[in-house]
Amino acid sequence: MALNPIPDLLDALRASLAGLDDGRVAEYIPELAHADPTWFGLALATLDGHVYASGDADQPFTLQSVSKPFVYALALTDRGLDEVVQRVGLEPSGEAFNATRLEPGTGRPPNPMVNAGAILTASLVADGFPRVLAGLGAFAGRVLGVDERAYESEVETGDRNRAIAYLMRTAGSLQADAEQSVRRYFRQCAVQVTARDLAVMSATLANGGVNPVTGEPVVTRDVASHVLTVMATCGMYDFAGEWLLRVGLPAKSGVSGGIAAALPAQLGIGLFSPPLDDRGTSVRGIAACEELSARFGLHLMRPPARTASAVYLVENRDRVLVRGLQGDFGFAAAEALTRELAGQAVEGGLLVLDLDRVGQLHPVAAQLLGTLIERLTAYGMTAVVADGDRRGLLPQAHREFGALELALRWSESTPIRA
Amino acid sequence: MALNPIPDLLDALRASLAGLDDGRVAEYIPELAHADPTWFGLALATLDGHVYASGDADQPFTLQSVSKPFVYALALTDRGLDEVVQRVGLEPSGEAFNATRLEPGTGRPPNPMVNAGAILTASLVADGFPRVLAGLGAFAGRVLGVDERAYESEVETGDRNRAIAYLMRTAGSLQADAEQSVRRYFRQCAVQVTARDLAVMSATLANGGVNPVTGEPVVTRDVASHVLTVMATCGMYDFAGEWLLRVGLPAKSGVSGGIAAALPAQLGIGLFSPPLDDRGTSVRGIAACEELSARFGLHLMRPPARTASAVYLVENRDRVLVRGLQGDFGFAAAEALTRELAGQAVEGGLLVLDLDRVGQLHPVAAQLLGTLIERLTAYGMTAVVADGDRRGLLPQAHREFGALELALRWSESTPIRA
Amino acid sequence: MALNPIPDLLDALRASLAGLDDGRVAEYIPELAHADPTWFGLALATLDGHVYASGDADQPFTLQSVSKPFVYALALTDRGLDEVVQRVGLEPSGEAFNATRLEPGTGRPPNPMVNAGAILTASLVADGFPRVLAGLGAFAGRVLGVDERAYESEVETGDRNRAIAYLMRTAGSLQADAEQSVRRYFRQCAVQVTARDLAVMSATLANGGVNPVTGEPVVTRDVASHVLTVMATCGMYDFAGEWLLRVGLPAKSGVSGGIAAALPAQLGIGLFSPPLDDRGTSVRGIAACEELSARFGLHLMRPPARTASAVYLVENRDRVLVRGLQGDFGFAAAEALTRELAGQAVEGGLLVLDLDRVGQLHPVAAQLLGTLIERLTAYGMTAVVADGDRRGLLPQAHREFGALELALRWSESTPIRA
Amino acid sequence: MALNPIPDLLDALRASLAGLDDGRVAEYIPELAHADPTWFGLALATLDGHVYASGDADQPFTLQSVSKPFVYALALTDRGLDEVVQRVGLEPSGEAFNATRLEPGTGRPPNPMVNAGAILTASLVADGFPRVLAGLGAFAGRVLGVDERAYESEVETGDRNRAIAYLMRTAGSLQADAEQSVRRYFRQCAVQVTARDLAVMSATLANGGVNPVTGEPVVTRDVASHVLTVMATCGMYDFAGEWLLRVGLPAKSGVSGGIAAALPAQLGIGLFSPPLDDRGTSVRGIAACEELSARFGLHLMRPPARTASAVYLVENRDRVLVRGLQGDFGFAAAEALTRELAGQAVEGGLLVLDLDRVGQLHPVAAQLLGTLIERLTAYGMTAVVADGDRRGLLPQAHREFGALELALRWSESTPIRA
Repeated sequence: MALNPIPDLLDALRASLAGLDDGRVAEYIPELAHADPTWFGLALATLDGHVYASGDADQPFTLQSVSKPFVYALALTDRGLDEVVQRVGLEPSGEAFNATRLEPGTGRPPNPMVNAGAILTASLVADGFPRVLAGLGAFAGRVLGVDERAYESEVETGDRNRAIAYLMRTAGSLQADAEQSVRRYFRQCAVQVTARDLAVMSATLANGGVNPVTGEPVVTRDVASHVLTVMATCGMYDFAGEWLLRVGLPAKSGVSGGIAAALPAQLGIGLFSPPLDDRGTSVRGIAACEELSARFGLHLMRPPARTASAVYLVENRDRVLVRGLQGDFGFAAAEALTRELAGQAVEGGLLVLDLDRVGQLHPVAAQLLGTLIERLTAYGMTAVVADGDRRGLLPQAHREFGALELALRWSESTPIRA
Repeated sequence: MALNPIPDLLDALRASLAGLDDGRVAEYIPELAHADPTWFGLALATLDGHVYASGDADQPFTLQSVSKPFVYALALTDRGLDEVVQRVGLEPSGEAFNATRLEPGTGRPPNPMVNAGAILTASLVADGFPRVLAGLGAFAGRVLGVDERAYESEVETGDRNRAIAYLMRTAGSLQADAEQSVRRYFRQCAVQVTARDLAVMSATLANGGVNPVTGEPVVTRDVASHVLTVMATCGMYDFAGEWLLRVGLPAKSGVSGGIAAALPAQLGIGLFSPPLDDRGTSVRGIAACEELSARFGLHLMRPPARTASAVYLVENRDRVLVRGLQGDFGFAAAEALTRELAGQAVEGGLLVLDLDRVGQLHPVAAQLLGTLIERLTAYGMTAVVADGDRRGLLPQAHREFGALELALRWSESTPIRA
Repeated sequence: MALNPIPDLLDALRASLAGLDDGRVAEYIPELAHADPTWFGLALATLDGHVYASGDADQPFTLQSVSKPFVYALALTDRGLDEVVQRVGLEPSGEAFNATRLEPGTGRPPNPMVNAGAILTASLVADGFPRVLAGLGAFAGRVLGVDERAYESEVETGDRNRAIAYLMRTAGSLQADAEQSVRRYFRQCAVQVTARDLAVMSATLANGGVNPVTGEPVVTRDVASHVLTVMATCGMYDFAGEWLLRVGLPAKSGVSGGIAAALPAQLGIGLFSPPLDDRGTSVRGIAACEELSARFGLHLMRPPARTASAVYLVENRDRVLVRGLQGDFGFAAAEALTRELAGQAVEGGLLVLDLDRVGQLHPVAAQLLGTLIERLTAYGMTAVVADGDRRGLLPQAHREFGALELALRWSESTPIRA
Repeated sequence: MALNPIPDLLDALRASLAGLDDGRVAEYIPELAHADPTWFGLALATLDGHVYASGDADQPFTLQSVSKPFVYALALTDRGLDEVVQRVGLEPSGEAFNATRLEPGTGRPPNPMVNAGAILTASLVADGFPRVLAGLGAFAGRVLGVDERAYESEVETGDRNRAIAYLMRTAGSLQADAEQSVRRYFRQCAVQVTARDLAVMSATLANGGVNPVTGEPVVTRDVASHVLTVMATCGMYDFAGEWLLRVGLPAKSGVSGGIAAALPAQLGIGLFSPPLDDRGTSVRGIAACEELSARFGLHLMRPPARTASAVYLVENRDRVLVRGLQGDFGFAAAEALTRELAGQAVEGGLLVLDLDRVGQLHPVAAQLLGTLIERLTAYGMTAVVADGDRRGLLPQAHREFGALELALRWSESTPIRA
């Protein structure tokens, strides 16, 4: 068993939702109908570039509407916010993804997350589809390809999108050729990705536009925050308000079953499960986001910390690891520490965790650290926790000793447990 | 001159916007028409309970629609999220504040921030208006009163709200008496507050429901985050999407010229300036929020820190103050440190700031600390900064010395400057 | 057996539809729920003041929405078309009767047949409800009363109409007090009538505003034609287009089960059967109108005649009745002739009908005249038809004789049959 | 000067409106922009096949939306009412001609007069465009051609109609290819006609489907009445209700400046004047229809006669014309009589008009007969009127003489004037 408990948490979460067999695989595009309804992949990318993957996280599928925020980021980069906003609005429409309502007077589609807005947005990216494909690849951190059969499938069945494009032509907001614009949009929808890719793409947005895996700056910090905002208010169509309240993650779903979600400055999430609910969103994907938000404390309006988390004391000497924590700890901070300690583990060594300066310890943080201690112990390390507030992490050290003194005494074979 | 530069920053911001004389004072309620269009108050409440107030921050005015999120918080408390959501939706309506559209089938108003939703929400608070008034007072941290003339004024002119109430009666969503419900809503709109109150009320939401001034728990952490979410998606009506993108603060405005805004886990803001734009929102209030967001780095999707801010080293000995900083510093963290140091200043003493473990220093944080150093120097202190990355704070200490050694050497009258 | 076959036709039509037991009696106003679902009355008023009544044509019920066109006629009379049109539109709304949409800018309700328009219309009638009640009585040709229990019932349950009134107050189109306007409207809805009344009221409109029974001019010819037009385009709400196509009669229905319908310059129809379809219209009432339109050739766009019907030759001498017909004959012309001849019948006498100048004989006209001849023969008269085109009316006269000569020969006991 | 005064009435009406120079020639289709704004043609076709033409009644122009009711008639013929109604609704939409709203669930366009409905309707005509062209020609009574440049012009600029077609494809109501359907519709819009043609086409509908000039049965009586109904309720788009109230003629306008209008069983009207109002309807065309309706008493809800008009007595002997009139006389009956008498005029002869059995004489009928008498007198005839009710037609005959006796006495050189 690996020392880091997070992969197990993700596997358990996925397993707990596998029985959720509501929903139907999309059929309106023939290619999508071939998807296996049991596919279920989940990935989580941290802002220092680590990716946790679980289940069918490497199963390729087409981006579909998940492409929208990322192509919007490219358009913002090429044209600037003001020009883009003159052509595509920013307001939630309260309507379905394929609504045809345009803003009276301007002919603007309401926002870039509905099809109308996405078709127009795609037409604003400079240099055509090669730039779109390269840009999506930069977000994912690898070269992406197009599923040509899915593309052809959409071209054949995409009459509603053609209608929308012609309406925008008439309204004057779409200035490019209608059929070509629709085809460029279909092509971006047919780009193949995996849940792992979606996690990295989302993490790039959460990371201020810098891909945390490749280190490449893909878009500016401003563009990344603009895209996250639009995902928050418009990403889940007419369900956006309840989604943000219950899940609290800027997100975008697609009819192939993918969901990309991000928590600014914390992490990116990728999900994939083809069966969809009535709104066209992955049933297990929604459930997984809800569970992650609730269990891992990931919610935009509920930051983990009032005073920020920090590891103020880091001592690695001989076979002794000492960590002094300060502030409030949520999932992201606890994950980083857990992963780092799991990587430093040494048989027969000692871990001292000093929590005396810690304010709030989110349950998921306590769970991660607690499980880590159990596993390190099983692995052959000694671990003690100095915690005057007794938050429940065991074993507790003698109260009279500080963390550094504990480390010293351990070297001297003095009893250190409470 | 006070040592803390923040009051001066707020005064300067307010002065820079005083000349903005667009907009008109609301006239549809006669009482509102008496407001002085030059009134302009601004307040900022931190989560440790400090309130900065500038201009007409103590001028009383009526809450109007700013009451909506706070009464929603009370209804959530009394009925629970599920019951409230069954009666009032959560989706942005993309419509004006006084729209009459109800959800087909359920008769639910779209969200609690439009009048329909607010009238219904008010009817859900247990025990009637005394509970509403007490609850609003708990958010503000003081006993509030009702402007009876404004109330009577609304009763006389409120036919549209009566229409909305009767529509909800018919649709079955409003179960209380229509006229009584409307009057309760008018009464909550007529509660008198100040910009200072709005800052504290907002800070209570940002602080997980605990009033940071009084320490009183007003609503639960869950309720506070729900209310912030609804403010983010629906608080600015049909302008919500652009507001969240450009300003990035969950907020609620009222026709008396007030705006309440909050940044979760960071701070609360209160604004007051009567002239309104076409949408019925304070012109200077909007401008001030935009400036605060841009200058102070307050934006939901652009958290100040990737690794959190912390003061890992705090040494106060003799007349020497040593502070070691770690992580990324934005406004809120810099404000807390600045305020604390300004309070500790001692003539003839030494301040050592060690920035070597600092990642990003937001410009506003650099400005606050830089101005503080200038003022402490003028006050008679010696201040040095240890910063291998040379972020521009001066004077720089000798590079070869660490922070504690600097403090020691200063006591020994050894030169410490670079 | 009476000689005039029309009562029997109406009874047969009613009997053929009695088994139609779809639909439900209205329950939203408690008083209406007491109606007997088997009640079924039908009346037909001609423009010379004869009323045919069949079934429960004298059962009282409340006017409900059937009041709308008649009160509109009063408002047009009191205010003139231009002033009324400034306050209430003329366009079909394509919406349900209780829709709340008002015209942007003007706040006008779309037309006087939806509740909003009817409430506003009622407020325009000069001198209040006594004038309304007297006006409705003039249309009906008798003094009408109000069902006070139905009125109270509506006052208690009429929140949607209150909502509509307050919306119009806010929009500025309703200038009277909202509650009073709604109550005046409820009171007009509670006026008690019978199917016989509805037939006379409709015939008054068809007759250019002159009550054909009392001879009283109720409204002008212009007002009558305006009201008929609005009934044609808006009377059946969102079903108006299909109704006019399939039935072709300007009409207005009410939730108590009444329908008033009129064919300009021809006749008025009154129907009453409480069970309603989903749109709130009497199921048997609709079916009866469809049958009358189809069997009797009553359709606005299918006038009975291209060259008009006339009785060019009228000779009543001794026991001989001679009638020479010219032009095309539909129901109304045939009815008048049939009724007149039935009244003139004399045992042992002779009727000669000369059809040689007749163009088209609508099937219902042939049926009426044919049945009349059978009955006159049974009654003891001799009847012969001179008809070179042999339209099927029997017995045919000798072809070589003209109508007058036939009459002469009959006196001389010469054989006159073909 | 011709004896028949009607051409002069039409010329005068046209001249009185020529100065009405509001409106603008349509420019959205480049070909239309070439129209001369002073063109003004007017034609009136009677149901016995006479056509009055005035002004630019033979100037060719493209049908545009005036094609819609006639192609609808062809679709009804080919598919039957029930099948057509399943695909295209019958309800006025209250929206502009190019609205995109389709019926939820069915995807039906609201009616065949808006573009969506017309595109779908065109796709229902069997055997494609040749059948459409032949059918339109049968309505007009001559072979029609297509303005290919106007067609090409529409193909280039018709993106909105493409959008509508693709929407209907998606909704499932349009089953034919979108681009082909739109092109067929554009082609029918580009068929060239004249105001004279429109009068005959309208008269064919008014005449129960039989072209009154050629005598050809084009569509059935049922189809003709269905089309007239839909013109009445939907023909003038969101102006239909007011049009029917004020003008009272089922009608259809087009952006090339044409209007076709019909009064069932009475006549057909064709108008042409390119400058359009904001709704896209010919300004002078509307004014001319209003004038015709008011002056000539042409209004669906105001039939000229309560008892029908007839000429019961027709005596032409020697140079004596005797006409005995009976019933009420409006424009159509008076026109037929006037035209017939003008054709029979004989110098030195006598006309005797017996009005003793006449009920109402519409002012236009009095005007026509009065002018005729003046002209016949000028031409050298003697004319007298026997009219106990003294309706103003002069010269009046001696009251003691009946019409036939007058004729006899005239032959005998007895004074016959009053």
